[in-house]
Amino acid sequence: MRVGFIGIGTMGEPMAANLLRAGHQMMVVAHRNREPIERLLAAGATEARSAAELARKVEVLFTCLPNDAIVEQVVAGSEGVLTGAAEGLVIVDCSTISPGMSQRLAIKAREVGVELLDAPISGGKVGAEAGTLAIMVGGSQLTYERALPALQAVGKSITYVGANGSALAVKLGNNLVVAAMLVAISEALALAKASGVDTAVAQSIMANATARSFVLNDRVPPTILAGNTAPSFKLELHRKDLGLALEHGMALGVPMFATAHVHQLYTQALGLGKGALDTTAISQLYEDALGLSLAAGGALE
Amino acid sequence: MRVGFIGIGTMGEPMAANLLRAGHQMMVVAHRNREPIERLLAAGATEARSAAELARKVEVLFTCLPNDAIVEQVVAGSEGVLTGAAEGLVIVDCSTISPGMSQRLAIKAREVGVELLDAPISGGKVGAEAGTLAIMVGGSQLTYERALPALQAVGKSITYVGANGSALAVKLGNNLVVAAMLVAISEALALAKASGVDTAVAQSIMANATARSFVLNDRVPPTILAGNTAPSFKLELHRKDLGLALEHGMALGVPMFATAHVHQLYTQALGLGKGALDTTAISQLYEDALGLSLAAGGALE
Repeated sequence: MRVGFIGIGTMGEPMAANLLRAGHQMMVVAHRNREPIERLLAAGATEARSAAELARKVEVLFTCLPNDAIVEQVVAGSEGVLTGAAEGLVIVDCSTISPGMSQRLAIKAREVGVELLDAPISGGKVGAEAGTLAIMVGGSQLTYERALPALQAVGKSITYVGANGSALAVKLGNNLVVAAMLVAISEALALAKASGVDTAVAQSIMANATARSFVLNDRVPPTILAGNTAPSFKLELHRKDLGLALEHGMALGVPMFATAHVHQLYTQALGLGKGALDTTAISQLYEDALGLSLAAGGALE
Repeated sequence: MRVGFIGIGTMGEPMAANLLRAGHQMMVVAHRNREPIERLLAAGATEARSAAELARKVEVLFTCLPNDAIVEQVVAGSEGVLTGAAEGLVIVDCSTISPGMSQRLAIKAREVGVELLDAPISGGKVGAEAGTLAIMVGGSQLTYERALPALQAVGKSITYVGANGSALAVKLGNNLVVAAMLVAISEALALAKASGVDTAVAQSIMANATARSFVLNDRVPPTILAGNTAPSFKLELHRKDLGLALEHGMALGVPMFATAHVHQLYTQALGLGKGALDTTAISQLYEDALGLSLAAGGALE
């Protein structure tokens, strides 16, 4: 297929490379940061001068962008995708934005004969590089089926969820659960540590008990237990997702007991300068208050 | 070994039966509910007239009781275990009580030459019957080693944690994580449902994403998704554990952001008459507020 890609960052660049590798024609759009563009051009991509030009020339257009405002500008702005799009274009938006924004953009797109899918991704940089992302897709089912050959080049587990915005709702739900787990696990480790138990012992017991989970068993050992805050998923981005979930829940009348509370804790951590650390650094709210480390083997002060 | 058992209820009776099966001599204490006693007598146990008499005649005494007050009375009451215990007796307390109470009872026991271990168990009725319980043990390591042959008859994964009360601290930590997860998962399912997504679809996507866990993958389908509230672990007992964790954290100066908040939600559910339902019925706080069911396949109202 003729595929376009806007947003060739940490996730987008390897996804675009996988689309090329799968035999799709790839077109990217010129911008100041030349390095990822040059790498994709060397791999066979071509370059459009603007988003509008790109939108005229491709059948499927991936967008993988940081937030609501940027997606809105790129898709529906005065020089955006919709100003140049050929009728029948499918926009596959992999950004994590608000379900409401995605629904509004889908309506605007439909007015000019363009379909938009919300297709949030899960699996991180590693999954993007390996082409093994989990992709949830919202929008019309026919459009989903048209985009499927391109989706299969970047993801392994691809699930059609339902109407526009529904995939984002599930993604935000997943991420609110993970944030609540990180807070509760930090709290359990702090309780154990303050009781004189090494956090590695407490983690290992819980990892074989009913609290066992990807977060506790796989994410906590190389981060909280290792005293390592190098970002795999930045705390400030996780906070952004909590804010989106909260707004979406408020719009739908869903009580957001957990999200509202955890969002406050993430806001506090952001204010304390921890936004660029890994999301697991939410544990520092406990470490700082107790004056002790939750790293394994650390002495109890 | 000569083993005694006080508290032959849902968990205790199959544990006592497994001790008999492993070749230990078993003594139980007379009480009004004859049925479990008669079953154990038929399997080879003998019967003492009182806790004090039992404590004189055994080497290891298991207690498996509902709460702090009952454990205190049975162990340190005016006709309790310590009034009759032979020097060298080891009390293995499998009850989930406060770490502070367990520490105080251990000190009282040591004054009369008796050792007490906190040995909270995880694995439910099924694990008790199969002899595959996970057992965390706090107390002196020498005492732990003396009790080990008896512990091995009732559990599979047996971990020495540290000083008195430390095993209870880890158990309470595990259970606070599970409660926080149940609230957050219910919230994510409610958000998906209100967005028009079937809860089975949302659960299945999250079960393959970063929220995957024993609770989401194994506990939620036969309960929340099935609309089934039959108790496997009663909500009121889970609330009791949250209260114990909260008190323990307060005593140690640990901020209990998650536990304090989740304890309030469980208290609300208890007040609404849900205490005897399964702990997963905490999801009804969302269902009741939204006027919709989180069971799979239910229509969106």
